Amino acid sequence: MIPIVSIVGKSDSGKTTLIEKLLPELVRRGYRVATVKHDIHGFEVDREGKDSWRHKKAGAHTSVISSPSKVAVIRDVEKDLTLAEIRDRLIQDVDLILSEGFKKDTQPKIEIFRKGVHESLLCTKEDNLVGIVSDQVFNIGVPCFFLDDMKGLADFVEKRFLVPQKKENISLKVNGAEIPLKPFVRDWLKGAIKGMLASLKGCDRPDRIEITIEDHVK
Amino acid sequence: MIPIVSIVGKSDSGKTTLIEKLLPELVRRGYRVATVKHDIHGFEVDREGKDSWRHKKAGAHTSVISSPSKVAVIRDVEKDLTLAEIRDRLIQDVDLILSEGFKKDTQPKIEIFRKGVHESLLCTKEDNLVGIVSDQVFNIGVPCFFLDDMKGLADFVEKRFLVPQKKENISLKVNGAEIPLKPFVRDWLKGAIKGMLASLKGCDRPDRIEITIEDHVK
Repeated sequence: MIPIVSIVGKSDSGKTTLIEKLLPELVRRGYRVATVKHDIHGFEVDREGKDSWRHKKAGAHTSVISSPSKVAVIRDVEKDLTLAEIRDRLIQDVDLILSEGFKKDTQPKIEIFRKGVHESLLCTKEDNLVGIVSDQVFNIGVPCFFLDDMKGLADFVEKRFLVPQKKENISLKVNGAEIPLKPFVRDWLKGAIKGMLASLKGCDRPDRIEITIEDHVK
Repeated sequence: MIPIVSIVGKSDSGKTTLIEKLLPELVRRGYRVATVKHDIHGFEVDREGKDSWRHKKAGAHTSVISSPSKVAVIRDVEKDLTLAEIRDRLIQDVDLILSEGFKKDTQPKIEIFRKGVHESLLCTKEDNLVGIVSDQVFNIGVPCFFLDDMKGLADFVEKRFLVPQKKENISLKVNGAEIPLKPFVRDWLKGAIKGMLASLKGCDRPDRIEITIEDHVK
């Protein structure tokens, strides 16, 4: 499961700037990072009058722009997604997700605080605050980093969220909902499936197996 | 598997306009449609200077903008994706994908042709041409529709690609690649997994089962 860390802070605290400084340090260390930003006002798809904008305007639920180096997907949703929903539905192929804001979400948070701008912190440990970046030191039981100490902050993020770890190695979803599996059931299901597939062509070295069964008539 | 139809045509034939007219007719019939557009020149993420643009510029592999009504995902890719790759990796929750262009892709194509603008068709039946929309009639063995006959065109698309059909009901991917399964193996694998899960809590009425096994240490 891709780990998520939210960079939070009151307005004008410098959240985007902090992400701009932390990102290159993580990328330099070889990590792929996704960022997530909340936009309460909505946003425009492409520029007015351009093709994808016209597609969406004409009623497309999803609009994709594909190029040789990047792709953009814009799709309708029924409600604000949580960070976990954004991770599970929309993000693949990265090591870490850094979100900007999302202070009400349950994910771990790093708050940026500058003493000249605000008087008190936005979050407490009860909000899952795991770190503070500031020009002043707080003694509230979470690590503090100075505003320019990107090495220290990246070390912390790396150690806490990115250390080599055995990934969760089997997940089961039924009708879209994750089914929790006890350790015995996990091992048993994994062993049974790997055993069943072992003799199939193309399945001799499976690092990742994905099986989808759909039973409804559309 | 979500069906794909490409709207193709020479430049200035009116591909975007055709999609703008066909989309509302399909939406009115209750279908959710995704559109895909190729952009060879690349495109900008958000507007210069805005937060997501700054995230991407600072090295984010993926950048997500989330709002209560829509989400945008912009991510790096190593190469131009095929329509099937775009479908499999990026699109969910729709009934049909309409692409604009992609004439070299193998997916079924509907060509728009206007006699005042060009002299000959872009595609033949060998290119998987399944329909023509034009102000002239072609006798090449594929159905022709007049430029404004969106009802006829939507009927055709609906009948050919959207009729109630038993969905492909088991897929297996190993290390990201789809493994073809013979009918016997399909039924056997599906039966074995459904049998194994039948007694687990939360698995009593599985319309959709997704199992992912990952075995590498990250």
